Amino acid sequence: MLRVGVVGAAGRMGSQVCVAVEADPGLDLVAAVDPAGGQAAPAAGRMAITPERAALSEAGAEVVVDFSHIGAAMDTLEYCAGAGMHLVMGTSGFGPDRVARAGELFPGGPGRPNCIIVPNFALSAVLAVRFAELAAPWFDTAEVIELHHNAKVDAPSGTAISTAERMGKARGDTPWAHDPTTDEVLAGARGAIHASGVRIHSVRMNGMVAHEEIILGATGQTLTIRQDSYDRQSYMPGVVMAVKAIPGLEGATVGLERVLGI
Amino acid sequence: MLRVGVVGAAGRMGSQVCVAVEADPGLDLVAAVDPAGGQAAPAAGRMAITPERAALSEAGAEVVVDFSHIGAAMDTLEYCAGAGMHLVMGTSGFGPDRVARAGELFPGGPGRPNCIIVPNFALSAVLAVRFAELAAPWFDTAEVIELHHNAKVDAPSGTAISTAERMGKARGDTPWAHDPTTDEVLAGARGAIHASGVRIHSVRMNGMVAHEEIILGATGQTLTIRQDSYDRQSYMPGVVMAVKAIPGLEGATVGLERVLGI
Amino acid sequence: MLRVGVVGAAGRMGSQVCVAVEADPGLDLVAAVDPAGGQAAPAAGRMAITPERAALSEAGAEVVVDFSHIGAAMDTLEYCAGAGMHLVMGTSGFGPDRVARAGELFPGGPGRPNCIIVPNFALSAVLAVRFAELAAPWFDTAEVIELHHNAKVDAPSGTAISTAERMGKARGDTPWAHDPTTDEVLAGARGAIHASGVRIHSVRMNGMVAHEEIILGATGQTLTIRQDSYDRQSYMPGVVMAVKAIPGLEGATVGLERVLGI
Amino acid sequence: MLRVGVVGAAGRMGSQVCVAVEADPGLDLVAAVDPAGGQAAPAAGRMAITPERAALSEAGAEVVVDFSHIGAAMDTLEYCAGAGMHLVMGTSGFGPDRVARAGELFPGGPGRPNCIIVPNFALSAVLAVRFAELAAPWFDTAEVIELHHNAKVDAPSGTAISTAERMGKARGDTPWAHDPTTDEVLAGARGAIHASGVRIHSVRMNGMVAHEEIILGATGQTLTIRQDSYDRQSYMPGVVMAVKAIPGLEGATVGLERVLGI
Repeated sequence: MLRVGVVGAAGRMGSQVCVAVEADPGLDLVAAVDPAGGQAAPAAGRMAITPERAALSEAGAEVVVDFSHIGAAMDTLEYCAGAGMHLVMGTSGFGPDRVARAGELFPGGPGRPNCIIVPNFALSAVLAVRFAELAAPWFDTAEVIELHHNAKVDAPSGTAISTAERMGKARGDTPWAHDPTTDEVLAGARGAIHASGVRIHSVRMNGMVAHEEIILGATGQTLTIRQDSYDRQSYMPGVVMAVKAIPGLEGATVGLERVLGI
Repeated sequence: MLRVGVVGAAGRMGSQVCVAVEADPGLDLVAAVDPAGGQAAPAAGRMAITPERAALSEAGAEVVVDFSHIGAAMDTLEYCAGAGMHLVMGTSGFGPDRVARAGELFPGGPGRPNCIIVPNFALSAVLAVRFAELAAPWFDTAEVIELHHNAKVDAPSGTAISTAERMGKARGDTPWAHDPTTDEVLAGARGAIHASGVRIHSVRMNGMVAHEEIILGATGQTLTIRQDSYDRQSYMPGVVMAVKAIPGLEGATVGLERVLGI
Repeated sequence: MLRVGVVGAAGRMGSQVCVAVEADPGLDLVAAVDPAGGQAAPAAGRMAITPERAALSEAGAEVVVDFSHIGAAMDTLEYCAGAGMHLVMGTSGFGPDRVARAGELFPGGPGRPNCIIVPNFALSAVLAVRFAELAAPWFDTAEVIELHHNAKVDAPSGTAISTAERMGKARGDTPWAHDPTTDEVLAGARGAIHASGVRIHSVRMNGMVAHEEIILGATGQTLTIRQDSYDRQSYMPGVVMAVKAIPGLEGATVGLERVLGI
Repeated sequence: MLRVGVVGAAGRMGSQVCVAVEADPGLDLVAAVDPAGGQAAPAAGRMAITPERAALSEAGAEVVVDFSHIGAAMDTLEYCAGAGMHLVMGTSGFGPDRVARAGELFPGGPGRPNCIIVPNFALSAVLAVRFAELAAPWFDTAEVIELHHNAKVDAPSGTAISTAERMGKARGDTPWAHDPTTDEVLAGARGAIHASGVRIHSVRMNGMVAHEEIILGATGQTLTIRQDSYDRQSYMPGVVMAVKAIPGLEGATVGLERVLGI
């Protein structure tokens, strides 16, 4: 059994990670840390939460999962590199500089710990975007529809923008088919035009959670790739997968794609 | 067997109507007229085409179907009213004045012919819009996505606009839930805002034909109504239905809804 | 404000009803009863739960909502009829005998209470089934796909069976198009054949909740009606609607359809 | 411009290939052969059809496309290998023996012709199956729904069976989640069980053409991959792609996957 510690264990995501680790027969939750202190959410499992990262070493954690905030996350990065523990980083806010620092701290090599920084743990979303990218060169037209609950304030979603970007890059210099619209009777009907040439449409709907649909068309046929997230637990299979895969990675990695082998 | 005549029999739609009438065991094609003359399309069936409407009376047609152009269609309207023949009008361009004229010519009453003016013969589209209208009062949010082949020059489609209009009217004074978007990162992402408050998104996709999807949302649930037209033949079941139903109607009618009893 | 009491307030559904009633500006939660005693679920709102129905009268409840079990539900039926309170019955298990008894107890008439027995409060499901019924006469083929979480032990779902039944009845003597299959390479591929002639396919999928899709086809076109329930809260808008509508009903009613005017 | 000859040019598929080749600015149709003689379909383009394959050499064809029948196809295979022409084989019926023969005739090497045998030219279908295969290892449950026009006599479709097979192989020894169904109220509801453990559901629907949907589920999320073919022209982009790619292949290849780089 792989010995796992969680940092940010009192938070919304961290407490769910504790539960998911405890439920997995191949994993053993050995330490639950939260630098901000606080009580675990009711779902956080039976383990007491301590504010000190030292508990990770004392418990002999082999892999640490961090869902805290960006400041605490950098401390966890330094701590794990020093203590020789693998690190799965779920905290958001890692720009190029922080990714570079992770590369310095986790250079890889025999007997050294690895680090993976994961912007999105939802397997279905990671796969959907990757498949859209693989398909993009072979079609004439492509549009993205993202649908979210009606409390989301930004549009389009970050994932939709990133999908369009990656589809455009995958296509290289080949342009998409010319947009036929000459008469937009109501402004905005044709959606947002991303720099890649991919149109994005954002739907906000009571009852929905988080969904993305990519449609690609060629003569006589279409291909539709759709991802549906029904609740926050949709991140847990990706977290567990990263925890199990990290001993076999090499140095610092960004994104779940390499773990999925796609 | 109901005796049917077709006006505009050499045209794209009219020639298909001839084939559909010939194929139906309850209908008998007795006259094929095209005021513009011309040869029937290859699909137009075995009947010779004549330019004169008089052929309709000579053949004893009981129901006439007109798919011509608006000028010729008004002549057919006058002709059928005078000759005592029921008329299924498929030609587009009937505004309030022409509808009023049809009402004068086909007042209804014992032994008198009836007339039905049909803007859209696709049963699935007529039903989809009607169902969206029936559902509109019971949800908090609703958006329309219409998807068409990539040669369509206008956006949104007329059907989508009409759908939004009818949903708004069905709802009356009850407003939709407030749009949560405060940060439209890319302009147009949230689609076109129709006066009814229903957002419309237009997708143009190679391979597609004509499709409309209406999504309605309330706490914890959504209802989706989708209509797919795969080819022009999708109008034929509606034409045949109107031909069979018209003897039982009363005077002048607009739209297939009454035939469908919805 | 309409004064509302809840019976079964400590249960899964009843406790959510308490929360929904408290959250609605037009409703006032005045009594929370649970004959089985017990503690309210954490979501059950701030009101203390009492085991005695007498609390309903003492609090002056105008409408009672019952989500208990079938035995207790019959007691609530008698109690409300005697006390002159309208009753929204959400407990399942009402066969023809019990419905008849409700008719005797709630005969309607000036100043008398009404009762509505609701097998399914999910508006989207009620509307989807009704629309499938309205559409059934106009298509050649129809199949139902129901998709549920992978803990559901029965297949097909009760709603899918009821959908097929009602579509068959709506169609009357008109048969569906002949099934073309002569070579079922793998048994079961064509799904279950309901007596109505409608095929039903049951999908069980981790991540999903409760979803139903009805597809109808005619020449060149299809109509798809889809209902998605994302969580148990999807019943609440229907409960609130029934509570508000019941003073305007007449005697005993079964099903939300009449409230929806469809 | 690549010089292209077509064998089976009078047939349904072959005549469309002629049109597609003529329409492509990078391709030149130089010979149209049909061993069975016969007249080209109206869509077959302007080129006269000859029964002799010798016309291919006389016209200097660099790539030959064969859509004939299996007997004639083997003759084309021998002819092209002897004449040093690349061959795109669209005729179905190539089992292991015939594939082996193709490998002998087209061993690859500098200055030698190549051959590609393609069971399915619909890009969207080829990509959908490949993506299902790539995704299969990462989910707990997966089912396939294939939907076809109501004249298809076999169920499930060959593509659906092949999809299930490839998903099973991609998954290796990892079993899918246990099927929860203990009470199949109507036999067949849960579809056909393929040896891979993937359930397959076949829908037959008037109006539809050929469609496949693969749904995969994990905690809190689903991934849906859907392919829609709207008409027979959906094969043409794949044919044109294979024609252009074949000079860069090496020896004999089966399937469009390698051309697509997936």
